[in-house]
Amino acid sequence: MKAHIITIGDEILIGQTLNTNAAFIGEQLTNLQIRITASSVVPDEEAIILKEFKRAFDANDLILVTGGLGPTHDDVTRKCVVDYFDTELIENKDVLEDITKFFESRGRILTGTNRDQALVPAMATPIRNARGTAPGYWIEKGKKIFVVMPGVPYEMKNMMENFVLPKIATLLESKSFIITDNLLTTGIPESLLFDKLGNIDDLLQGAKLAFLPNQFGVRMRITVESNSEETAKNKIGEIEQKIRAKVGRFIYGRNNDTLESVIAKLLIDRGAKLAVAESCTGGLILNRLTNIAGSSQFLERGVVAYSNAAKVELLHVSEDTIQKYGAVSIEVARQLAEGVKAISGSDYGLSVTGIMGPAGGSESKPVGLVYIGICDSKICTANEFRFGDDRLLNKDRTSQAALEMLRRLLLGISYED
Amino acid sequence: MKAHIITIGDEILIGQTLNTNAAFIGEQLTNLQIRITASSVVPDEEAIILKEFKRAFDANDLILVTGGLGPTHDDVTRKCVVDYFDTELIENKDVLEDITKFFESRGRILTGTNRDQALVPAMATPIRNARGTAPGYWIEKGKKIFVVMPGVPYEMKNMMENFVLPKIATLLESKSFIITDNLLTTGIPESLLFDKLGNIDDLLQGAKLAFLPNQFGVRMRITVESNSEETAKNKIGEIEQKIRAKVGRFIYGRNNDTLESVIAKLLIDRGAKLAVAESCTGGLILNRLTNIAGSSQFLERGVVAYSNAAKVELLHVSEDTIQKYGAVSIEVARQLAEGVKAISGSDYGLSVTGIMGPAGGSESKPVGLVYIGICDSKICTANEFRFGDDRLLNKDRTSQAALEMLRRLLLGISYED
Repeated sequence: MKAHIITIGDEILIGQTLNTNAAFIGEQLTNLQIRITASSVVPDEEAIILKEFKRAFDANDLILVTGGLGPTHDDVTRKCVVDYFDTELIENKDVLEDITKFFESRGRILTGTNRDQALVPAMATPIRNARGTAPGYWIEKGKKIFVVMPGVPYEMKNMMENFVLPKIATLLESKSFIITDNLLTTGIPESLLFDKLGNIDDLLQGAKLAFLPNQFGVRMRITVESNSEETAKNKIGEIEQKIRAKVGRFIYGRNNDTLESVIAKLLIDRGAKLAVAESCTGGLILNRLTNIAGSSQFLERGVVAYSNAAKVELLHVSEDTIQKYGAVSIEVARQLAEGVKAISGSDYGLSVTGIMGPAGGSESKPVGLVYIGICDSKICTANEFRFGDDRLLNKDRTSQAALEMLRRLLLGISYED
Repeated sequence: MKAHIITIGDEILIGQTLNTNAAFIGEQLTNLQIRITASSVVPDEEAIILKEFKRAFDANDLILVTGGLGPTHDDVTRKCVVDYFDTELIENKDVLEDITKFFESRGRILTGTNRDQALVPAMATPIRNARGTAPGYWIEKGKKIFVVMPGVPYEMKNMMENFVLPKIATLLESKSFIITDNLLTTGIPESLLFDKLGNIDDLLQGAKLAFLPNQFGVRMRITVESNSEETAKNKIGEIEQKIRAKVGRFIYGRNNDTLESVIAKLLIDRGAKLAVAESCTGGLILNRLTNIAGSSQFLERGVVAYSNAAKVELLHVSEDTIQKYGAVSIEVARQLAEGVKAISGSDYGLSVTGIMGPAGGSESKPVGLVYIGICDSKICTANEFRFGDDRLLNKDRTSQAALEMLRRLLLGISYED
């Protein structure tokens, strides 16, 4: 089965909106072993959309379209579907009921503009929208499938997961297996990781390995293709073992893991509580931890101690220490971690203090300088880190380094090489 | 000038990485009035990359390539550039110095793998990398320009801003002007916004208006094309005035503004201090506020009062109130805002408490129920909001609604219709 992904919208073409839809669809189709032959972006113009529908439909078995289904005048996708398939619009009762309920649940009044969204191309099976008002369309013609979904990412995602992907899966007869597995590392640069792995051809034996760095670390993606799912899985397992033997302590997770999800699991498994004191990251560490469902099981509280007064009053950092060493110092990091652990009665205290930039640096304490403190029942320590000069990247890197320090403490992994 | 953007990397094609590079480049070229004829993604395969180089180079004046310049075996872009332009690799002293300094500044040892990155195609002007080790290439052939940059977004962005865009700008002679302007709204659904604007054709008089919704609100993008920059700007100004007359109080900013940047400006201009107490959003509001450079000028402190103990001990919420109404209640929201304002001596206190899901809901207090509290020197109030059932979307929406409540208080904008 060959697929083409079409994203409709000037906002993508001119870079005002990221094409998260094509990425999500690409990932999901790849999981189903479907080959994506093309991914294209077209503007909100009927003539161009119709031409792209034709090009995609002629050369592929599956076409997935997103965007342009909203209730306003600039949304032309439905009209193009009606024209391309030479069909007509009919009001769909189920869809109208969905839209009415959606508005009622939010205490809003249904307008004519929204009622109009219950009009669905006659030859399409409507795909109901649990997150918004515009329905999607599932169209079968010959042996080909044409799916249209709204451009709002969470609406599209909900339709994909609950309707489109299960329906596609039932139509597939898979023969070749492409399996990928991702090992997620942090705290080690790409080049050093590569060097530590040694002879890469010996390691891979025909499999593929990609290194994908960003500010949170380097992802290693292993890809194996085989006629048998079992062979592919075994081979991935063998390569993974070899990699772990060499750089295992830098690997915090696999695939969709995040450092915060890994830490959440470790803490919940131990029934342990964490408290966090953030200065320079300003809530980012806490925000990441509370993105995990059930975070109240392990996160007791957090303090964003931005001012010195907050550090002293809420976390009992000594004023003398701040005077003597400055708020950005290894001593204050240690006291922040100790303080937040003590006031919350938690098992672990984690803290960060640093200079994120662009302003606030000096010769002795440049932008990018960070201290991370951590305490458990036995030790209370802090480390120095030096990052770059971009504020948001520094926040990301600091939060990642802090969570990694906690992971290493929880698992007893040393920082020594 | 016609441009083609090529993104190299399987990780984009299969959706493991978002194509932020194409979006950024698309936006920057559009700002320079350059027409983007195509944006394509190709895998890390030499034959396919070479074919794509040819296709793009034949039909365009400007080709921008990102990805595949890293130090590991899976990066093949440099080899393709050498082959396509029939040139050779030469060690560049400046680049080698940059790489050496980069490693020194981070206290790391330069490896052979990294030293190799100082080899640059002979016909290219290297584009120095201030954020990493791989240089980019600026190649001119005939009247055409071919630019190659690393795939790491912040490395590419730095090269674009400091080298590529200024250099392209000097080569342009613009004739037609396409000007866009974005008005950012929140707290009003797309359909209601559309209805409130009335007759859209009367409003636009040939200009274009797009509605771009996401969980933070609806962006209205106005586009005007004209032979004269002044005419285009005047027309945009007129349309903007008409829109503001109808839905102005929902508009919090323009173009690259964020609600947090707008609030930061308002608070700094007044010399006012803010403190925030977050329960359900777990640090997201504080994180957004501290993304603004200079946030220490207006943000005094924040508390992530996840447990009831934290609410009582740190923010002086009454235990009786929690007992009687529950932690998710209008009364607790008000006391949280009052408490955080009082302990910090700030001018404004902002608080949120709610149920983000997926678990924790009940019939009387379902997932998505949120209370937001706000206090200044005169009033202390709280509002109820009802969002959906997706945890991360609920966090985003709650943080946006809280910041919008603060903006409306600061500007004296009523919630009444």
